[in-house]
Amino acid sequence: MYQQLQANLLALKNNRIFELFVVAVIIISALEIGAKTYELPPLAATATHVLDIFVTLFFLFELAVRFIAEPNKKRFFHSGWNLFDTLVVVISLIPVDDTEMALLARLVRVFRVLRMVSVIPELRVLINSLLRALPQLGYVVLLMFIIFYIYAAIGSFLFKEINPDLWDNIAISMLTLFRIMTFEDWTDVQYETMEVYPLSWIYYLTFIFFTAFAFLNMVIGIVVNVMEEEHAKSKQLQNKGAEPTMADLQKQIQTLHASLNALLSKENK
Amino acid sequence: MYQQLQANLLALKNNRIFELFVVAVIIISALEIGAKTYELPPLAATATHVLDIFVTLFFLFELAVRFIAEPNKKRFFHSGWNLFDTLVVVISLIPVDDTEMALLARLVRVFRVLRMVSVIPELRVLINSLLRALPQLGYVVLLMFIIFYIYAAIGSFLFKEINPDLWDNIAISMLTLFRIMTFEDWTDVQYETMEVYPLSWIYYLTFIFFTAFAFLNMVIGIVVNVMEEEHAKSKQLQNKGAEPTMADLQKQIQTLHASLNALLSKENK
Amino acid sequence: MYQQLQANLLALKNNRIFELFVVAVIIISALEIGAKTYELPPLAATATHVLDIFVTLFFLFELAVRFIAEPNKKRFFHSGWNLFDTLVVVISLIPVDDTEMALLARLVRVFRVLRMVSVIPELRVLINSLLRALPQLGYVVLLMFIIFYIYAAIGSFLFKEINPDLWDNIAISMLTLFRIMTFEDWTDVQYETMEVYPLSWIYYLTFIFFTAFAFLNMVIGIVVNVMEEEHAKSKQLQNKGAEPTMADLQKQIQTLHASLNALLSKENK
Amino acid sequence: MYQQLQANLLALKNNRIFELFVVAVIIISALEIGAKTYELPPLAATATHVLDIFVTLFFLFELAVRFIAEPNKKRFFHSGWNLFDTLVVVISLIPVDDTEMALLARLVRVFRVLRMVSVIPELRVLINSLLRALPQLGYVVLLMFIIFYIYAAIGSFLFKEINPDLWDNIAISMLTLFRIMTFEDWTDVQYETMEVYPLSWIYYLTFIFFTAFAFLNMVIGIVVNVMEEEHAKSKQLQNKGAEPTMADLQKQIQTLHASLNALLSKENK
Repeated sequence: MYQQLQANLLALKNNRIFELFVVAVIIISALEIGAKTYELPPLAATATHVLDIFVTLFFLFELAVRFIAEPNKKRFFHSGWNLFDTLVVVISLIPVDDTEMALLARLVRVFRVLRMVSVIPELRVLINSLLRALPQLGYVVLLMFIIFYIYAAIGSFLFKEINPDLWDNIAISMLTLFRIMTFEDWTDVQYETMEVYPLSWIYYLTFIFFTAFAFLNMVIGIVVNVMEEEHAKSKQLQNKGAEPTMADLQKQIQTLHASLNALLSKENK
Repeated sequence: MYQQLQANLLALKNNRIFELFVVAVIIISALEIGAKTYELPPLAATATHVLDIFVTLFFLFELAVRFIAEPNKKRFFHSGWNLFDTLVVVISLIPVDDTEMALLARLVRVFRVLRMVSVIPELRVLINSLLRALPQLGYVVLLMFIIFYIYAAIGSFLFKEINPDLWDNIAISMLTLFRIMTFEDWTDVQYETMEVYPLSWIYYLTFIFFTAFAFLNMVIGIVVNVMEEEHAKSKQLQNKGAEPTMADLQKQIQTLHASLNALLSKENK
Repeated sequence: MYQQLQANLLALKNNRIFELFVVAVIIISALEIGAKTYELPPLAATATHVLDIFVTLFFLFELAVRFIAEPNKKRFFHSGWNLFDTLVVVISLIPVDDTEMALLARLVRVFRVLRMVSVIPELRVLINSLLRALPQLGYVVLLMFIIFYIYAAIGSFLFKEINPDLWDNIAISMLTLFRIMTFEDWTDVQYETMEVYPLSWIYYLTFIFFTAFAFLNMVIGIVVNVMEEEHAKSKQLQNKGAEPTMADLQKQIQTLHASLNALLSKENK
Repeated sequence: MYQQLQANLLALKNNRIFELFVVAVIIISALEIGAKTYELPPLAATATHVLDIFVTLFFLFELAVRFIAEPNKKRFFHSGWNLFDTLVVVISLIPVDDTEMALLARLVRVFRVLRMVSVIPELRVLINSLLRALPQLGYVVLLMFIIFYIYAAIGSFLFKEINPDLWDNIAISMLTLFRIMTFEDWTDVQYETMEVYPLSWIYYLTFIFFTAFAFLNMVIGIVVNVMEEEHAKSKQLQNKGAEPTMADLQKQIQTLHASLNALLSKENK
């Protein structure tokens, strides 16, 4: 009887209409979250509350369907996306009534919108490919962090007295440096310190050059990586297809040669 | 007699001088629109008015020529550019006299400048290729919208009390986030919220990283797409040209082998 | 006797030490121009004046050497770089004494620094390649201009009353739009107009999207162009080198086949 | 006995645990430098002082180990990284007690964090590849410098009286131009000079176009360079591997032809 249920639920899960309905509920949930940021009349506030309960229950139902339909229960939690969905559903089940916690409850509900990513396969592929690109960038990010750290330490040592709001300690200095990297009012920061240290423009210019160069390197690294992957993919495809490789041709010419040699030796006899 | 007219108009339409004259009228129309943004002496104002009527009539005439010259009337409206031209011409035919509507009439006339795009084939190709690139970017744009939506909801929940001008509801928050993405005075927004929530820099930094990453991904996506198209085009060109493919060579070597085998079997006899 | 002089000057012109001396004089001339931007003591002012006369005379001498050394006088002015050098030298010969014209004289002398480009061949190649890339971008630049023109006209019609400093006529509006494209305090402009037209954010957002998209298209266009040129160059190099093409191999296999057929027909006889 | 020591130290140097310990000490050193930017209680201040002595001694020890373990002492200083390490260690050995010099001592200690780069091979490779890319960019950087120099001279001549803070001499003007290149409040600078010279927007727009174009050219140059290197690398790899080249195939077909010709000439006899 359980297997009967499982088969039914699997059919439901793969049903195109059910899938679209799930996406629709996520969109409704997202719209509800957006609506809550406006001042709502009492009636609408009650409506969003009811809707909220419905969405929570439906997500629980949908998760249960997916869990029961899965033949191998262990493999279910091997997928990061399933874990994410479970987390979002479980947390939104926790009852929160206090006004203090209400904000937290709202924030958790916001993450329901991220379920859009876990439901639409194309977005899942996109995120996965982004995550896979990260480790390749590891060392450039480390290098950038070292540049930030050194400049933040120097900046804090030199400019602390001039403007503690920007350079009080290494953490605040790093935030200020990030601001400088985005070119956001960086000259205001520079002119302020140049009044005390007239040569401090060297500090800002070298920082901008180093980070811009490291950033450029990162971008080029990604582009080259992506291109190579595409190239490798298209090559693999070519090899699988009808198009023969150079090595294939070589082998054929060699057998041709062997036959010819056989002919020659026969003639000579 | 109608066919006679049609043939004549087709000749007129494809006449090089007529084409240049159409471009000239569009340029004059554009200059007239530009001139109207200045304070004009009464005489010049009258002149632009007369010019306006002439341009409207000429556009109507040119459209009529193109429509009559077209042998298949149904196909005429299948082209988006023809529809656009018709729309621009028809709207500018509506008489507007009230001062209220004068602004609207002026705005509609501005779109006549866009006829430059519909008249110059190279610009049409450019726009078409831009439009074709859009669907491929669909999912990255959707991902970016989800990032914006989630951050706008969080921002509105947390920062509404701090500055309603920037975070009052999800729509205003999204506009503020777009501003942050362009790095325009984003630290002012950040410092304001950091006074209440000292850790809110995490909100801004993660948002900048996510959107920058998604944007980078989009750019790389377009570059790779364009490159592949160019590659495919050049390959197709190669295949059509004199240069034989690997498969061609393989086939030739195989027939060579067959001949050789025939020779061998004859010798053996 | 003239040919003797010509041969001597040609030898001088191609002399490595003379070439370095020319570069040295240009650098000195550039340093002198830089020095003039500082408040100079009277002695130094006199020194720069003397130096100025020396540089002017030396440039005249160097130009004369190059002109006389050239066997074909007509071809001398076919080169844009020679024309540019002549212009710079001739203009700096015009005596300017009035304080009014002194500024102009100074500005003309600044362009002497550009002679660095005309003297160093690598920079000349760089500039030439930049100039050659321009026409390919023609249509994207035209499209961008049309976008600017339309938005400037709309902006001037709608926002003229709100802030005439930014939107008074189409020319000022285009300058304001360029500022918006560089994201420089664009939200200040936006918030100002949003007080009158709350929906005017659509104007700014669409403008930013269109120009960013057109700009991106331009950059990708250049990248693809450069890549293709490199590709074509490397292919040409390959064809000239030892590496045979597919067509070469095909021809060889065909002659092989012909020989084999000759053999077969002989056997059959 | 010395050789015994050398062998032991070489073993120690290449020991995986020792390597990780070195990285750990560098990280601790970096954290200590970061901690010093905060107001520390007396106890923690003493602790960082003790830690500082330990780190200095350990770096000295580690450098000694690497120096003694190196069989060829001369080659040790041929590596820029070893020179850098020695410099950092030697400078931090200089005793500094005065409050005046304390700042300098702190700054020198900051460079210890850079030892992270000299210790982790992947970062070393990254820095080396960046340094190798620089000379290829030499002429674009020179061109950019010439553009900056010319515009700074013009700017200083024209705008000195308007705002000496921004345009007093060529050095300050170049700093102002760098600010304009980063789009940081560039319109404030522009509007100020436009009050005196209404056409000075031409100065800013052309400067932005030239630098943006030169910068773009630089980026594309790097991308093309990196791509070509990757391409050359993959080609070299291909040639070393099993895949035969076109030339190999051609040679084989030629020997085939020779054999066939031998056969033909025998038949004719």
